[in-house]
Amino acid sequence: MLQSWSKTAPELVDVAMGRKPADLVIRNGKWVNVYSGEIIPGTDIAVKAGRFAYVGPDASHTIGEGTKVVDAAGRYLVPGLCDAHMHVESGLVTVTEFARAVIPHGTTTMFIDPHEIANVLGLDGVRLMNEEAQSLPINVLVQVPSCVPSAPGLETAGAELSAQDVAEALAWPNVIGLGEMMNFPGVAGNDPKMMAEIAATQDARLTVGGHYASPHLGREFHAYAAGGPADDHEGTTVDDAIARVRQGMRAMLRLGSAWYDIAAQIKAVTESGLDPRNFLLCTDDSHSGTLVHDGHMNRVVRHAIAQGLKPVTAIQMATLNTAQHFGLEREIGSIAPGRRADLIVTSDLAALPIEMVFARGELMAENGTLARDIPAYVYPESARNTVHLGRLLAAADFDIPSNARATRARVNVIGVVENQAPTRALQAEVAIENGLVQMDRANDVCQIALVERHRGTGDVVNAFVSGFGYDSDCAMASTVAHDSHHMIVVGTNKADMAKAANRLHEVGGGIVVIKEGRELALVELPVAGLMSDQRAEIVAEKAAAIVEAMRACGCRLNNAYMQHSLLALVVIPELRISDKGLIDVRTFQKTDVILSTH
Amino acid sequence: MLQSWSKTAPELVDVAMGRKPADLVIRNGKWVNVYSGEIIPGTDIAVKAGRFAYVGPDASHTIGEGTKVVDAAGRYLVPGLCDAHMHVESGLVTVTEFARAVIPHGTTTMFIDPHEIANVLGLDGVRLMNEEAQSLPINVLVQVPSCVPSAPGLETAGAELSAQDVAEALAWPNVIGLGEMMNFPGVAGNDPKMMAEIAATQDARLTVGGHYASPHLGREFHAYAAGGPADDHEGTTVDDAIARVRQGMRAMLRLGSAWYDIAAQIKAVTESGLDPRNFLLCTDDSHSGTLVHDGHMNRVVRHAIAQGLKPVTAIQMATLNTAQHFGLEREIGSIAPGRRADLIVTSDLAALPIEMVFARGELMAENGTLARDIPAYVYPESARNTVHLGRLLAAADFDIPSNARATRARVNVIGVVENQAPTRALQAEVAIENGLVQMDRANDVCQIALVERHRGTGDVVNAFVSGFGYDSDCAMASTVAHDSHHMIVVGTNKADMAKAANRLHEVGGGIVVIKEGRELALVELPVAGLMSDQRAEIVAEKAAAIVEAMRACGCRLNNAYMQHSLLALVVIPELRISDKGLIDVRTFQKTDVILSTH
Repeated sequence: MLQSWSKTAPELVDVAMGRKPADLVIRNGKWVNVYSGEIIPGTDIAVKAGRFAYVGPDASHTIGEGTKVVDAAGRYLVPGLCDAHMHVESGLVTVTEFARAVIPHGTTTMFIDPHEIANVLGLDGVRLMNEEAQSLPINVLVQVPSCVPSAPGLETAGAELSAQDVAEALAWPNVIGLGEMMNFPGVAGNDPKMMAEIAATQDARLTVGGHYASPHLGREFHAYAAGGPADDHEGTTVDDAIARVRQGMRAMLRLGSAWYDIAAQIKAVTESGLDPRNFLLCTDDSHSGTLVHDGHMNRVVRHAIAQGLKPVTAIQMATLNTAQHFGLEREIGSIAPGRRADLIVTSDLAALPIEMVFARGELMAENGTLARDIPAYVYPESARNTVHLGRLLAAADFDIPSNARATRARVNVIGVVENQAPTRALQAEVAIENGLVQMDRANDVCQIALVERHRGTGDVVNAFVSGFGYDSDCAMASTVAHDSHHMIVVGTNKADMAKAANRLHEVGGGIVVIKEGRELALVELPVAGLMSDQRAEIVAEKAAAIVEAMRACGCRLNNAYMQHSLLALVVIPELRISDKGLIDVRTFQKTDVILSTH
Repeated sequence: MLQSWSKTAPELVDVAMGRKPADLVIRNGKWVNVYSGEIIPGTDIAVKAGRFAYVGPDASHTIGEGTKVVDAAGRYLVPGLCDAHMHVESGLVTVTEFARAVIPHGTTTMFIDPHEIANVLGLDGVRLMNEEAQSLPINVLVQVPSCVPSAPGLETAGAELSAQDVAEALAWPNVIGLGEMMNFPGVAGNDPKMMAEIAATQDARLTVGGHYASPHLGREFHAYAAGGPADDHEGTTVDDAIARVRQGMRAMLRLGSAWYDIAAQIKAVTESGLDPRNFLLCTDDSHSGTLVHDGHMNRVVRHAIAQGLKPVTAIQMATLNTAQHFGLEREIGSIAPGRRADLIVTSDLAALPIEMVFARGELMAENGTLARDIPAYVYPESARNTVHLGRLLAAADFDIPSNARATRARVNVIGVVENQAPTRALQAEVAIENGLVQMDRANDVCQIALVERHRGTGDVVNAFVSGFGYDSDCAMASTVAHDSHHMIVVGTNKADMAKAANRLHEVGGGIVVIKEGRELALVELPVAGLMSDQRAEIVAEKAAAIVEAMRACGCRLNNAYMQHSLLALVVIPELRISDKGLIDVRTFQKTDVILSTH
C-alpha cells in the first residue's frame, strides 16, 4: 500500500541525505525531464517506499544493503504514461485485465469513466470499478459518469445516477472528477441536473470532464465553456483544438481503436505554434485486440511523434500535462522527488520500445511481458447476473405485425454507415405475409430488436436495419448496447434471433453470432454483460472470432461489431432503437416502424 | 461579493447564449491568450457577475440594456498580473494601502506571506491580514508563515506559531498554502515541526512555499526537494533556476526593491531553452518608494521582457503559470470563460503602459490612477499597541560595563556590508572609562541595542556595530527588526539612543532618526510596529526622509535602512544581535561582546 508523500517525506529526505538506503537505484539513465523539457544524461534515480527520493547525477550515497541496483546503461528514463480519458469497458475486460494488458506498454496511470457499468448497475457499478481500481499496483483514477442515462425520456437504462449520486461519489477516495459531460445542449440550456453535477465537481475542487461533440464553434460552444467543463476529447479538426485551448479547456487528442483525432489536431502545435502544455493525449476507447496487438499510450505517443512533435513534447502530453490538469502533478507525471516512482526504460524516444516498466518502484514489466502477477478482482454476484429477460424468447417475439389485409408496407429502416457512428434514416418497401411485415434479404433489409434485459419485463422492440449485408439465416446479439446496454439483436432469421438472445441470457451477457441455428462465435461478458474477466489476449481472440463469424454471415463492413453495439445510442443521429421504440434522433422523437401499408 | 464559478455558471451560460445581457463588454481588443500563447486581434469580452462569460470574435449578442461597453480600440487585453510571493509588510503599509498602490500598476493578485506580523502578533496577526485581504476588490491570497520564530532558541519572537497553529490556519478561507519554508537545514534534518507543517499543507492539497537560501546544490538541496517545498524564490544564478525546475519545483524569479534575480536566472529559458511554464515572477519585498515611483508586477514583467523573453511568455510567468502553481487556474491568471474578470488594457506589450485595470469586471484604475475608492481596513487596538518597553529608557540602559580597573577592551563588532544582507564578524580595540566600554566614533565603531518590545521586560542587549559611518551625536531606532521585530537602536550617543527608543514607544512603533537630541525623521508604523495605515505615497516620502536623515548623520551607504533592520536576523551569517545576546550565526551560538580587557 502506497503512503502519501507527506507520510513518506522523512524517509525520502533520509535517503536523499544518505542516512538510509534506497529500495531501488537506477543508474546511468537519460532523464527525460518533463518539467524542464530537457534530456539529461548520466542521471541516477533512488526510490524509497514507492516514491522518488533522489534524481540527480550520483545516487551512490543512497545505495546500501538491500538496495536493488539496476543499470539503465544510458537508456532513456521516461515518466510512466497517463491516459487522460478512457473507458475500460471498451476493452471488454475488467480493470485488472486492462491493466495487465497495458502495463507492458508503459501505461501506469489511467483516468477512467465507468459510464457503461453505471448504465447497468448504477452507483454500485461505479463503486465496484473504483474499488477494483484502487486494488491495482498502477494508478487508475475514476471519473464519475455524468450522463446516466444518456438520453432521459428516450430510453430506460438499467440504472440512473442522480445529481445527488454524483455528489456522493465525488467524495469517494480515488475519484478525480466528473466524467465527460456529454449533454452539451443541456449545459448550454442550463439543465439543472447537469449544472448541479458540474457545480458539485467544482466545489469539490475536482476536474469537470468535457465532451462537446458538435462541429459548431459558435454561441453554444462558448456557453459550454462558460458552464465549466475543463477539457474535451471530441475535437477532430485543428480548429476544434485551437478553439478549446483558447477558451482555457485542455484539448485531449484521441487515438483509440477507432478514433484517429491526433493527426489533424496536433497541427495546432506543429503548424500553428500553440503552447503545447494544454494538449493531452488519450485513447477513450481501446478494443482488446488493439491492446494485445498494437499497444496503448505508447502507440499514442509514438503516433504523436510521427506527426512531427518533439519526443519530449509528446511525452509531456502523456505525463506532466495530464497530471497538472487533474491536480496530480505532485503525485504522478514526472520523474522528480516525492512523486510515485512510475517510469519506463526505453532505448529510443521516437520508436519508444517499452523495455522496462516500473510502477511505485516495483518492476512491473520487461520487454513486453508482465514481471509480476496481479491478482484477479472478483466481482460479486450482484454484478454478474444482469441479463434478465423474464422468459426465454421465441421466434414469434420478433414478429412485426401489420394490417392483415395489406400485402406491402413502407417501413423506416436504420441505415448503418461503415466506419461511422451516425446512422442514416432510410425507408424501404417490404412484403406483408400473414399479417407480419417481412424482411427483404435481397435488398439487405433485416430485423433489429432491442430486448429489455435489466428488469426482466420481457419487452422486445422490433424494427428494421440495413447495411450489414447478411446473406444467410443468421443472427447476432450483444449486451454491449450503448448507452443503456439492453440487448441488441440483429438477424435475418427470427429463430436464430431468439436463439442468440437466449444464449446471452444463459451465459450472463456477451456477444454471440448464430448461423443457421449453430453458434459460430461467442464472447462471454459476465460482468454486467459488458466485461469478461478473462485475459485480454483471450478476449481479443474471441472478439476476432466474432468479426470472422459476421463475415461468414455475409457482412463485409470493417469492424461492424462497433456499428452493431451503437444502434441503441439514442443521442447520435439519425435513427436508433431503444426500449421505448424506434427513435428519430434528428428530432428526439419516437417514430413508427411502419409508415404505411397497402 | 464575488460568487464562485459554480454559483455563477448559469448566468455566464445565459450571457454566452445571448439570453441575458452582460454587465460589461470590452470590444475590439488584442486577446493575449496565455493558454495558447497567441495574440488574437478583434476579440470581444463579455463579463457577468465579475467573471468572464464570453471571449471571442463578437459579443454583440451579449449587449443589452445596462451593459457597459468599452472600446479597447485595438489595444492588448492582458490578464491581471499576479505576484507569486511577497510580503506586504515590506512596503510598510497595510494590505489595503499596498493594493491601492499596485492596482494602477496592473497587479490584481498577490500571494502574501504575513511572516512579519506573525512574529509580533502570532496567529491573530495572520488572521487580521487574511481578513483584510478578503475585504479587497482584488485577489490577495495568504500563505501561512512556516517559521515563526525563524531561529528558535536564538531569539524570542513576539509570538510563535506551532505546527498546530499552522494546521489551523491552513483550513481558513483564502489561505492558499504554507509560506516560504526558510528552515532548509530543518527539512534536510527532518525537523519534526517543519515536516509536520509541510505534511499538513500537502494533506490539505495546498502549496508548500520554498526558500532554499544556499548556493549548494548537493545532497541538502535534493533532500529539501524531497521534503516537499514546491517552489523557490531564493535562486540567484542560472544554475539555481535550472536545478529547481529539474526537481519539479517552480523557479520563482524575483525583482524586488533590493532583489535583482531575474536577469541571471531567466537565461535558463532564453539561453538554455528550458520550458518556461515552470518559471514564475515575484517581487518578495517592495518598498513603498518602489511602488510609488517604479511600479510593481508591471515593472517585473517589463524587466523580464527586456532580458529577451517573448512578451507572451513573460506574461504567462506572471499570470497562468502562477495560477496553475497554486491550483487556481480556473479562477485567475487568464482571460477565459468562468475566470474572475481581472484584466489590463495596454497599447504596448513590451513597454507595458497600464492604461486600464479591471478587477472582477470593475474598472479599478485608469492611466495610473485609481478609478474607485477602496475603504481603509481598521486594525483593532490589539494590533496597534505593540511596543511594550515596560519603562522609559535612559542613557544608562545602553551602558556596556566592564572590569573597572582595565583601560582597553577587545570587543566583537557586527560589520555592516553595503547592499548585502550578510554581516561580517569584526573585532576592535576600544577604551574603557569609569568601568564602561566606550564607542570609537573615529574608527566607526558605534553601539547597537536590541530593545525587547513585545513583553515589556525592560531588557536591553547592547553590542557594537561598524559600517554605518555615523560621524555625529545621533541614533536611529526601528521596530522593523527582522524577524522577531523587537526594536533595533543604533547610535553614537546614548542619550539619543534612549530618546529614539522612547519616541517609538510613544508612537506605537516605526522608524526614527535623532541627531543631537532633535528628531530628524519619523515613520510611524502603528500596526504591529510594522505597518503604517497611511497612503503609500506618504509612507514613501517619510521613508525617503529617513534615508536623508541617516545621510545627515554621516551614513553614506546605499539604502542602509535595510541593513539596520536586518541586524537582528539571526539566520544569516556572520554576527547578529538578538534579545538573547550577541549571536555568532556561523556557529549558531551566543558569543561575548567583550573578548578581553587589559
